[in-house]
Amino acid sequence: MAEQTVATGARLNPHYRKLAAGYLFPQIKKRVNAFAAGHEGTRIIRLGIGDTALPLTATVIEHMHKGIDKLADQKTYTGYGDEQGNTALREELAKYYWKTRFVNVEKEEIFISDGAKCDSGNIQSIFDVKNVVAVQDPAYPVYVDTNVASGRSGGFSIDLSGYSGIVYMPCNASNGFFPSVPEQHVDLIYICSPNNPTGAVATDEQLKRFVDYARAEKAVILFDSAYSMYIGDNWLPKSIYGIPGARECAIEISSFSKWAGFTGVRLGWSIVPKALITADSKPGDAHTAWSMWSRRQTTFFNGASSIAQAGGIGALTDKGLMESQGLIDYYMENAKILRDCFRRLGFVVYGGKNSPFLWVMTPNSMKSWDFFDKMLNEPHVVITPGSGFGPSGEGYFRVSAFALREDILAGVESIKSNLKL
Amino acid sequence: MAEQTVATGARLNPHYRKLAAGYLFPQIKKRVNAFAAGHEGTRIIRLGIGDTALPLTATVIEHMHKGIDKLADQKTYTGYGDEQGNTALREELAKYYWKTRFVNVEKEEIFISDGAKCDSGNIQSIFDVKNVVAVQDPAYPVYVDTNVASGRSGGFSIDLSGYSGIVYMPCNASNGFFPSVPEQHVDLIYICSPNNPTGAVATDEQLKRFVDYARAEKAVILFDSAYSMYIGDNWLPKSIYGIPGARECAIEISSFSKWAGFTGVRLGWSIVPKALITADSKPGDAHTAWSMWSRRQTTFFNGASSIAQAGGIGALTDKGLMESQGLIDYYMENAKILRDCFRRLGFVVYGGKNSPFLWVMTPNSMKSWDFFDKMLNEPHVVITPGSGFGPSGEGYFRVSAFALREDILAGVESIKSNLKL
Repeated sequence: MAEQTVATGARLNPHYRKLAAGYLFPQIKKRVNAFAAGHEGTRIIRLGIGDTALPLTATVIEHMHKGIDKLADQKTYTGYGDEQGNTALREELAKYYWKTRFVNVEKEEIFISDGAKCDSGNIQSIFDVKNVVAVQDPAYPVYVDTNVASGRSGGFSIDLSGYSGIVYMPCNASNGFFPSVPEQHVDLIYICSPNNPTGAVATDEQLKRFVDYARAEKAVILFDSAYSMYIGDNWLPKSIYGIPGARECAIEISSFSKWAGFTGVRLGWSIVPKALITADSKPGDAHTAWSMWSRRQTTFFNGASSIAQAGGIGALTDKGLMESQGLIDYYMENAKILRDCFRRLGFVVYGGKNSPFLWVMTPNSMKSWDFFDKMLNEPHVVITPGSGFGPSGEGYFRVSAFALREDILAGVESIKSNLKL
Repeated sequence: MAEQTVATGARLNPHYRKLAAGYLFPQIKKRVNAFAAGHEGTRIIRLGIGDTALPLTATVIEHMHKGIDKLADQKTYTGYGDEQGNTALREELAKYYWKTRFVNVEKEEIFISDGAKCDSGNIQSIFDVKNVVAVQDPAYPVYVDTNVASGRSGGFSIDLSGYSGIVYMPCNASNGFFPSVPEQHVDLIYICSPNNPTGAVATDEQLKRFVDYARAEKAVILFDSAYSMYIGDNWLPKSIYGIPGARECAIEISSFSKWAGFTGVRLGWSIVPKALITADSKPGDAHTAWSMWSRRQTTFFNGASSIAQAGGIGALTDKGLMESQGLIDYYMENAKILRDCFRRLGFVVYGGKNSPFLWVMTPNSMKSWDFFDKMLNEPHVVITPGSGFGPSGEGYFRVSAFALREDILAGVESIKSNLKL
């Protein structure tokens, strides 16, 4: 249909019509709810959405209660905070990067937000709509969907190979689930490490290739490190800023959700280095990615909840970090149990090391959604169909270690007993 | 400069370059900080940003503490909530609309968010970039700035008459600070009542004219009712949905910030009626404003903080509402004191009734920013320059009643003693 230019009334953003289907996780919820409605009393074990299950740690709880008490007292009450976040929290994060990642980040370069999903969805809005986007394939659906909704793609192809105009960088067993740099020019590159969904962790060498590419092509890397706290092998990079030159080309997005249990509390951050100069900006210019993100956040956003930020300061204390390590260890033990289960049943399993996600091949080349239904119908276990993360995810499924131990064990038991292979 | 189409690297969103200056409130902060730095020990009284000063009420505090305790216990811990918000909170809001506004809203039509600023900034993204935007002039700057950043305007004019492509609807003394419907066709119409900054409250009759216009032109009204709890004259409309036909053409955006003290806690809501059908959608279609906002929120957002939502449920209890009425009464007494002060000094004062904002003419036709500086330098009182809200705001200033009584009284005293008229 030709583009409508005659003014005949309010029209909806036409790019949304390109979005292939509902967002993955609501789709899963729909199928699970339909199954549950038809099977009352059946125990459904949810290893689908990467949703935390363990309670918040004592130090976080204490800091949040104190945060509320401050709001109850006229002498300590505060209203609007800075849109960029509480200064003390930004300082603690800067210190944390230095202490644990040997990375120098100025506190002004850290923007506190209500979570990595929001930031990874909104970050594209400060870039030109004509910029070409590259994503790892498979990838967290938010990267692609937000760019499609904003007009950086054509339609979804009939053969399910993805959206035209988006450059998919296949990640599969043959490349260790990390892509080569694109052969063509691209402008914006989303990289997630430890990867959601594959669980693969990029090495320094792998990241360096992308940093070198980005600097040569004047591209910007959008680096999602939401799972970096799950890296136990300390030689693996937890931040992209350990790579020389990354401050000139990379934005890092991260979160308190998965390591401190903040999924429902909502707290994350983005780092936009002042040294990042795009193809059309100059050093010290009023128009740099840093100043643009400042403008975006002050105009469209009003700061993360002050109570969540109080909790975040608690999570970053030595005691808070130690307590969170307990959560991480617990979920990683879950991951080990799940790995062992699927391996013993003959599945080909990736991930689950330095990452809370397992990435598993479906048996007999089954389609991802077919295997999703099989897992729901036979052992009543919810997993995430790999194809929901992109065309190269077809034939895989993601298993999340974010669950209580008893659910993991019940799931493993049910899979062993009820999954017909 | 011709548009750049050659791929030479990541480029910034060119529409941001059109934004005339920094967002109004950070600009004010900058000038105040500069003054403070040069005048150590001087008491600065802030009646600029409409930022709440009284502590949260007992019921809200209690509900939030309980919300945190739930997150501390494995049995009651919850992770991700629905992006659209906690069902119980949506139900309470629906009941509240029925009880207090005689308006029928389905709970599925209510989308909980982290605040009215975010929603009023993001709502435009579900509409076509070619849609023509109309705003009250003066208006809350977020309406214009987010549309400019998203490409619905040309540049800012040299004579400060605003952005080309945006339809400004002048609100001034001669029309009682409420505009006539546009003479031309427009697609998206922002209306705020009680108005920020003028304090004017639209009547049923005034709103009806816009609803009739919107239905005839297939336009959509974006109705901001963030200050509706300040309406004491109960014959004035607190929701647009009391107007026949509004469900077919209006989205209402509102907030817990100003009446429950949630400015730092972050909680708001938007109502997108399922009956709202745009020029390019059909009833029950997969593409309606309701389904589009659902998709937007599930894709770009991850729900408001569960602790803020627990507080919101507390605020909507009978006890919570009664306690909040105490906050409202307190701020409205402030408004009365400020009105009396400026009137006695001979100023022409609007607003301050059914609204926490006063809208005052500068003396001797002074420019708004000049009077801002005069107020900062002489009585050390921060007000908001009217021109920051749009071209028709020139020659006015906004005074906010959101302050502690002692600050209001000190401000009044200092104005009487130190302002040289």
